[in-house]
Amino acid sequence: MAMASTTSNRHTGGPGYTPLTPATLPAWLAKTAGAAARLGGEPRDWRVREVGDGNLNLVFIVEGPGGGLVVKQALPYVRLVGESWPLPLDRSWYEYRALVTHGRFVPELVPALYHFDAEQAAVVMEWLSPHIILRKGLIQGRRYPMVAEHLAAFMARNLFFTSDLGMKAAEKRALQGEFSHNIELCRITEELIFTDPYRIAELNRWTSPQLDDVATAFRADAPLKVAIQELKWGFLSRGQALLHGDLHTGSVMVTEADTRVIDPEFAFVGPMGFDVGAVLANFFLAYFAKAGHPGDEDERAAYEAWLLQTADAVWTSFERRFLALWRAHAQGDAFTGELFLDAAGSAALEAKRQATMRELFTDSVGYAGAKMVRRILGLAHVEDLECIADPDVRAVSERRALAMGRSLIVERQRFDGMAPVLDLARNLRQQVLP
Amino acid sequence: MAMASTTSNRHTGGPGYTPLTPATLPAWLAKTAGAAARLGGEPRDWRVREVGDGNLNLVFIVEGPGGGLVVKQALPYVRLVGESWPLPLDRSWYEYRALVTHGRFVPELVPALYHFDAEQAAVVMEWLSPHIILRKGLIQGRRYPMVAEHLAAFMARNLFFTSDLGMKAAEKRALQGEFSHNIELCRITEELIFTDPYRIAELNRWTSPQLDDVATAFRADAPLKVAIQELKWGFLSRGQALLHGDLHTGSVMVTEADTRVIDPEFAFVGPMGFDVGAVLANFFLAYFAKAGHPGDEDERAAYEAWLLQTADAVWTSFERRFLALWRAHAQGDAFTGELFLDAAGSAALEAKRQATMRELFTDSVGYAGAKMVRRILGLAHVEDLECIADPDVRAVSERRALAMGRSLIVERQRFDGMAPVLDLARNLRQQVLP
Repeated sequence: MAMASTTSNRHTGGPGYTPLTPATLPAWLAKTAGAAARLGGEPRDWRVREVGDGNLNLVFIVEGPGGGLVVKQALPYVRLVGESWPLPLDRSWYEYRALVTHGRFVPELVPALYHFDAEQAAVVMEWLSPHIILRKGLIQGRRYPMVAEHLAAFMARNLFFTSDLGMKAAEKRALQGEFSHNIELCRITEELIFTDPYRIAELNRWTSPQLDDVATAFRADAPLKVAIQELKWGFLSRGQALLHGDLHTGSVMVTEADTRVIDPEFAFVGPMGFDVGAVLANFFLAYFAKAGHPGDEDERAAYEAWLLQTADAVWTSFERRFLALWRAHAQGDAFTGELFLDAAGSAALEAKRQATMRELFTDSVGYAGAKMVRRILGLAHVEDLECIADPDVRAVSERRALAMGRSLIVERQRFDGMAPVLDLARNLRQQVLP
Repeated sequence: MAMASTTSNRHTGGPGYTPLTPATLPAWLAKTAGAAARLGGEPRDWRVREVGDGNLNLVFIVEGPGGGLVVKQALPYVRLVGESWPLPLDRSWYEYRALVTHGRFVPELVPALYHFDAEQAAVVMEWLSPHIILRKGLIQGRRYPMVAEHLAAFMARNLFFTSDLGMKAAEKRALQGEFSHNIELCRITEELIFTDPYRIAELNRWTSPQLDDVATAFRADAPLKVAIQELKWGFLSRGQALLHGDLHTGSVMVTEADTRVIDPEFAFVGPMGFDVGAVLANFFLAYFAKAGHPGDEDERAAYEAWLLQTADAVWTSFERRFLALWRAHAQGDAFTGELFLDAAGSAALEAKRQATMRELFTDSVGYAGAKMVRRILGLAHVEDLECIADPDVRAVSERRALAMGRSLIVERQRFDGMAPVLDLARNLRQQVLP
């Protein structure tokens, strides 16, 4: 089956591929199984909006008399950069396959999948409404009481059940074999996160001249460069579980009660801490950005506290859930349960579980730092910071975030839990860095 | 290209597959490009011998008036166990692909490849003569002055150039994608090396009743079971480089001057220490076995010393060569060289190289221990020990080897170089263990 899968993705983006438009979409959808019935009425009744604000794809919301849906189509280049950076359309296949996998483990936390069209490199899926992008909600200062639990559950279940702790080796190796060919999207991460921010690179940008000194210092910072490249080697070689691969707050859609994770086109089998770190990093970026947003001081302080509490809850809940899954559903081939049935074995295995979570925390901290730095010195920035119009004000937040990112990367071994990480954030928040 | 490759292996063992025999082989070879020319004369002039003494395959030596060659054909089951343990024929494809890869990096250390026949799951390759299997040479007490350097070179070049240190991520990921589907052969390792020796398993056997107490103790040894499963998780999830995957002294053919590594059908992208550990383990097994072989005491002591010197030289030369390659040929995407050009960066990177070799040594030590234990308590044993006819004598050697194996697995972190490993071996050699 895995063989058939790797073969199929060759056909993603067939000779009939052409970017869809609001004008052409209804006729295409009319031929798509189930879509017409879901929308109701006739193609002329369907309202189409292109809403893609990401970097790589076209995204359409289609509404008909009977309901709505979303069409996401890959473009053959990086939208943010332009046609000079080509990207294979088969990433749409990996997104589809990752959505199917997530649907096995957390169906309530991903959009329902209606259709995959290989020739058009397009996924037809549930229209989430009234959901908004979590990042936008955080910028607006909204609170989401369920989001930490939901993100923790998304990561714990997907990472556990696609790791060698929860999945048999035969299935895991086939999964890795398939996603290993998602090469170009992995390359984006390898370059934009782990390399470019630490060298002179055409695509880098930062708040200049305010942060010129930090950018220069990072490029000459040997311990930082070794540490970021250690993390990169892990990204290249540690196949622990099927990752989402781009799990920032822009890949999460929320209401107060509901959370859905979207856009897993960067999926591949990699180090688990990369996903966990991405979530933590984006809450820390929101935290440091908050100081630059307008608003009442008390409200701001309360919201900043909520952001850190939420980051704390993400890790704490993730760790609890992951351990619980490991204790109850260890069907994988690592730590074969049969060997640990006696009292001594059971105690030793539980100690190993705890040690594994500490190692995973260390990795997560390091990858969180990597994600923070790249959003300030690299190509792709975050709206949390970008929406601060005054560059002097923005640079204050960014400088604090960079200081935290560097500590998380270089000193990741010294953080033995979330408390010192949150202390670091709060301490930096109080400082006006030189 | 990688896609085409993974597709092709589906066709290994076609509908026309049938095990070859000395009677049918000449007619098949006559149709095989180049083989007839190499052998010379007519098919009726060709002398065919089936010489397979391994566990999984048929191996034929064919000699004609003009020269000789070897045909290795996969059987659809584990020869050692019988038809009750089926094995996919596509392992022949992975062997062929690994031989091609080795041919890129160490052509002088592998047999020349003449032909791959997908339908018959058969590889036609160079007949190595007067080479013998290294294990048999060691049992005969022969010295091979070049073998340590050659094995070190084989491992250093193959492991480095297929790792993220020496190979671009795009090529490495494609390689991993292809070999991830060598699932059944990886499963053999996962079960026979990392699991069965530590539980009651039908296929286990050991010198009984002499070693019953150790076998029982190992099954109840919680630190040992956690440690072996840590190593197993590494085997399952750490994709550092393309491994040979079965690099014992039975996979090496030698003369005094020449060394060739054969049989890479277990190849997959895994932890580098697994190959290094396999080599070390088999020299240690030969060392402990020697005490049970007949012969003059002084000669025995000198040969034992040579075996340990050779193991020492394997690691020392491997480390030196791997570091030299990393300094001179770092074309991979881990530790991007451009980041470390200044003096501080260069020094920090060199320190990282040294630290990486220490980690690789720790892994190698652990995997060496795993390989020693499985050869005494598991299914597949080694002739070095099996040829000791008296079970009481054999058990003395085996008990020492098991003690060393356990130490290497459980205490692998404490060995900071080959000296304490060799001391351990020498100390155990002097003991008659209870």
